[in-house]
Amino acid sequence: MTAYTQPPFIEALKATRPKTLPIWFMRQAGRSLPEYRTIRDNVAMLDACLDPEVAAEITCQPVRRHKVDAAIFFSDIVVPLKLAGVDVDIVPGKGPVFGQPLKTADDVKALVEHEIDDLYAITSGVQQAVMELGIPGGDEPWTPLIAFAGAPFTMAAYLVDGKPTRDHLGARAMMHADPQSWDTLMDWCATLASQFIVAQLQGGAKAVQLFDSWAGSLSRDDYQKNCAPFSGLVLDTAHAHGAPTIHFGTGTGEILDIMRDCGAECIGVDHRITLAQAVKRVSHGMGDSICVQGNIDPAILTCPWSVIERHVDSVLRSGQQAAAHIVNLGHGVPPNTDPEVLTRIVEYVHAWQG
Amino acid sequence: MTAYTQPPFIEALKATRPKTLPIWFMRQAGRSLPEYRTIRDNVAMLDACLDPEVAAEITCQPVRRHKVDAAIFFSDIVVPLKLAGVDVDIVPGKGPVFGQPLKTADDVKALVEHEIDDLYAITSGVQQAVMELGIPGGDEPWTPLIAFAGAPFTMAAYLVDGKPTRDHLGARAMMHADPQSWDTLMDWCATLASQFIVAQLQGGAKAVQLFDSWAGSLSRDDYQKNCAPFSGLVLDTAHAHGAPTIHFGTGTGEILDIMRDCGAECIGVDHRITLAQAVKRVSHGMGDSICVQGNIDPAILTCPWSVIERHVDSVLRSGQQAAAHIVNLGHGVPPNTDPEVLTRIVEYVHAWQG
Repeated sequence: MTAYTQPPFIEALKATRPKTLPIWFMRQAGRSLPEYRTIRDNVAMLDACLDPEVAAEITCQPVRRHKVDAAIFFSDIVVPLKLAGVDVDIVPGKGPVFGQPLKTADDVKALVEHEIDDLYAITSGVQQAVMELGIPGGDEPWTPLIAFAGAPFTMAAYLVDGKPTRDHLGARAMMHADPQSWDTLMDWCATLASQFIVAQLQGGAKAVQLFDSWAGSLSRDDYQKNCAPFSGLVLDTAHAHGAPTIHFGTGTGEILDIMRDCGAECIGVDHRITLAQAVKRVSHGMGDSICVQGNIDPAILTCPWSVIERHVDSVLRSGQQAAAHIVNLGHGVPPNTDPEVLTRIVEYVHAWQG
Repeated sequence: MTAYTQPPFIEALKATRPKTLPIWFMRQAGRSLPEYRTIRDNVAMLDACLDPEVAAEITCQPVRRHKVDAAIFFSDIVVPLKLAGVDVDIVPGKGPVFGQPLKTADDVKALVEHEIDDLYAITSGVQQAVMELGIPGGDEPWTPLIAFAGAPFTMAAYLVDGKPTRDHLGARAMMHADPQSWDTLMDWCATLASQFIVAQLQGGAKAVQLFDSWAGSLSRDDYQKNCAPFSGLVLDTAHAHGAPTIHFGTGTGEILDIMRDCGAECIGVDHRITLAQAVKRVSHGMGDSICVQGNIDPAILTCPWSVIERHVDSVLRSGQQAAAHIVNLGHGVPPNTDPEVLTRIVEYVHAWQG
């Protein structure tokens, strides 16, 4: 028997450097893949998320096609809200739309009465995906599955305004105008996000990525005082279940150190700053223990290969400043991306010798 | 005769501290005012911008109501494009939509054939506003009018994608995929923006604000190499016509120093960082000469007055780190803002003694 080796993605989350750089793509399971679009032709977004067989199939598609080093469970930030009976739908071309935006303290009180009573669809979906992706401990190679959740602030930003907005004014006002309602709301969001990831971990997920899509709209003070503690609760839950965590948002260069201090093993970085800069910002004395994830600019994916190769090289070189590097985009795969470009990037990164 | 005193807004742009802090609001001429909505009920956005009488009236409304220290000419980033015959309209609830997004080098070549042949509507609109706002040099107090233009990158971001997008992938790809077309496009945008502000300066505007709404989506390298030089051309034009300049974008904490180095007398700062931090970032050895503009968080405007007052106080105190401070929001006035709150903030700032 040979010594058992963990997949490179799992090694990197321990802040060690595996022989090949691990790579996956945010939104790899999605609209860039024709096999995904074929499925979604016949099923609405939230129905797809809540059908275990469909969600498992979509989760595995990019692993089959691109040979990425991790799957991420196909879902949406609002799925735990839907499971708690909140009136929400995902409108194509628009995003999540809620029946009742939160205008008053009573609205918040009524909302937080909602509870999730059944996460079977989620756990079952993950289990079915894991059956294909492989089980740790055997002789066969396996691909880890990442549990997915939206961070409390991003959930709250949707809930308060009732729809996607550019500046999240409603949520950012509530945290100052009515701090008590804000804390109640955020605590409830943290509970739902925690339950959502526990369901995925129970199904066999081996790591957690917490997406705080809109955290970049916050001032440092607002993030630190009014949001980070609640994200920390979710990451704590992951740790209590033995899972390492990745913490990601866009435009978060100003708050990366706080995001790490929430307890994340790995910090996701968007394209706005270099990985080397990110390492400096989050280090404060523990420089060599950080794993960073990112940050190929999604805008570069439509460029000629020579441009892509030069850019990926610069990302990989910059990532060498970190103890470990999980290669990814700086944001989700754009829908118009040629999937063959993604496959080629995976091959290139796997062959890269630094 | 008493010694002639410049308005506080003009004094501040010279990096000196007038007796009272000057204040105006980005998008002060707009949807938060009932008198504005009454006019716009009967006229489309671009028609309003291109009707000198209407544009002048809307420009003056917030000065009458709020007693702000500056007017800004009512217009839109795409107005110079419209005047050059580009197929563009502003769709309510959506923003600028172009008939032909720029997909190829030939598209860019065809676009840059367009020229503005008549800026009378702009110059005349400014002249009519200035007649009400007052003329420098006499015994009467007067309110300076700020000329308005979108920066070349923000114009290009709309043009390439053909509509507002979150990540401006089209423009950010073109600058790498086809640098020659990119430079051609940006040079043309800089020319149009320059002509647009010259028309306003000829009408009597006394300063320029260059809005680079989307610059915050760029990496530092991309901004420095592919965008800043073209913004610099527009600011140079303003200086050649004797006008001081304000350079503003949101989410630009990472590139503020480059934005200043384009030649701006004043840097606009959004709510994400403090004015004191902004001063540090742009100073590099000329610390005491910078004027900053901002950065009351628009989200705070719907909060109780006690919350607003505390926040405004913190902004004003932070602004004392700069040689001069023009008080403003960190972004435009949200449409649902109670105008009386804005008026009260103006009174509060004018009475503030530090």
